[in-house]
Amino acid sequence: MLPPGFTGAAIDRADHLRLDQTRIAELVVHAEARLLRLEGIDPAIDESGRLVWEPVTGDGHLFLGLDEGRPLFAPIVEAGSGAARAFALFDLLNRMDARDAAIWGVARSLNTWHHRHVFCGVCGTRTVSFRAGWGRKCPDCGAEHFPRVDPVVIMLAEHEGRVLLARQPHYPPRRYSALAGFVEPGESIEEAVAREIEEEAGIEVSRVRYVASQPWPFPGQLMIACIADAASDAIRLDTNELEDAFWASRDEVRAALAGAPDSRFGAPPPFAIANTLLTRWSEQECEED
Amino acid sequence: MLPPGFTGAAIDRADHLRLDQTRIAELVVHAEARLLRLEGIDPAIDESGRLVWEPVTGDGHLFLGLDEGRPLFAPIVEAGSGAARAFALFDLLNRMDARDAAIWGVARSLNTWHHRHVFCGVCGTRTVSFRAGWGRKCPDCGAEHFPRVDPVVIMLAEHEGRVLLARQPHYPPRRYSALAGFVEPGESIEEAVAREIEEEAGIEVSRVRYVASQPWPFPGQLMIACIADAASDAIRLDTNELEDAFWASRDEVRAALAGAPDSRFGAPPPFAIANTLLTRWSEQECEED
Ligand SMILES: [Zn+2]
Ligand SMILES: [Zn+2]
Repeated sequence: MLPPGFTGAAIDRADHLRLDQTRIAELVVHAEARLLRLEGIDPAIDESGRLVWEPVTGDGHLFLGLDEGRPLFAPIVEAGSGAARAFALFDLLNRMDARDAAIWGVARSLNTWHHRHVFCGVCGTRTVSFRAGWGRKCPDCGAEHFPRVDPVVIMLAEHEGRVLLARQPHYPPRRYSALAGFVEPGESIEEAVAREIEEEAGIEVSRVRYVASQPWPFPGQLMIACIADAASDAIRLDTNELEDAFWASRDEVRAALAGAPDSRFGAPPPFAIANTLLTRWSEQECEED
Repeated sequence: MLPPGFTGAAIDRADHLRLDQTRIAELVVHAEARLLRLEGIDPAIDESGRLVWEPVTGDGHLFLGLDEGRPLFAPIVEAGSGAARAFALFDLLNRMDARDAAIWGVARSLNTWHHRHVFCGVCGTRTVSFRAGWGRKCPDCGAEHFPRVDPVVIMLAEHEGRVLLARQPHYPPRRYSALAGFVEPGESIEEAVAREIEEEAGIEVSRVRYVASQPWPFPGQLMIACIADAASDAIRLDTNELEDAFWASRDEVRAALAGAPDSRFGAPPPFAIANTLLTRWSEQECEED
């Protein structure tokens, strides 16, 4: 079983070094130190589909961590340079090494966070990067601002051996996926799952089970994948969010994941946790089968 | 089994109404509408330990949702009024109705978020509340800012029928709890659990299992509780973060949860998910027992 996309970077984040400016300065000039090449905030890729690493020049970079002792950095680039729609990247991501995708994902998330936090939310003063790129600090009021991670639930409602899939208007042709939505302040994961399925499909659920998680760098979500039992299969679609929805059987899900030409729908790409979720569900033998 | 603290508010958030200013204006003047009384951002409590609700006056309030059709609002108060340490509240929380605590938690989280986002991070202009308090918008650059929820992992490393507990210097006397830390950009839940246990206790873990979650309004975390298998019981404590740590048996955990006077340690309070996590673990019969 493949691990979820954007996981497995397997570098030591060494976060105890981030505040140590002396050590970071030493790591920048370390003979083995490398700087990730970005095109805007997109990855630069060599002919074999791997990330491109260069000697470190300049400073103020994001400290990614230590890769078997080698210090890795990524540039913090100016806002507006390459924040294109994620979808243009998805072909590239399908070809990228999984570990490379995970490392680049950190650089992308942090860069978009910096772009949205140039000024202090408390007092309006221009902030500066600190903690080797893992924060911004206000020189006026002293407020410290830390990178944001937005938890999102993504889930399958299950009813008599079938799961609910839906499509949003902007999806590629034939694509269907799991429902998803942001966890709000004051909600547990389980409450967010139940609320989103009720809002988007009018279905009451119980017995929410956690399945897997992944970071998603468009721009910086933590995707939390779950399965829940649906009380009914009667769908009341929220047509502001969704174009269509249907209940898919295990055979239909397996055919879609296998890319069968006659499959009922197109599966989400392998690096999306919706794919992981459907794969794990399709491999379960549940009571109803 | 008690549900985790700050869950179970069981009000309809009706988030499709938030952007509908006409409907929100109607709900504000609804005969059944109620406004939560806050003391700063702390809850006002009546003699029976319940939240205090008053007729709605003024506008610009946070729309909490519909409670069996009754519109509920909370004030958005000025920054600085009552953002005291959470610990002063904990006695009160022990006595509060669980559903009330969940509703107040939303009001507290949103208020602290507003206080930290008075100015636009993109351009530095003063922002205004919109979406009935569930966002802030920049009148200059148009950027929309949404309430922040910070995912935090909190976890037990398990080794031969014992779990790792630790204390931070600011804890009340005798208190020990689970390790915890923020999920960073570019990490899955499982990766964050492994990194935090390695950083704080020098222990390698595998087989991370999700247990439960809760919102935590100090100021706005999503607590994600897990258990993982420890490869060893040799602790290398991060003394910058932790004062002490030890491996607790099921009997020791049960005695602490029961409040036994001769227990080895004091358990976290019932509204903290560390308590839920310890309770669930102590009720399991695992292979090692
Ligand atoms: Zn400031
Ligand atoms: Zn702005």
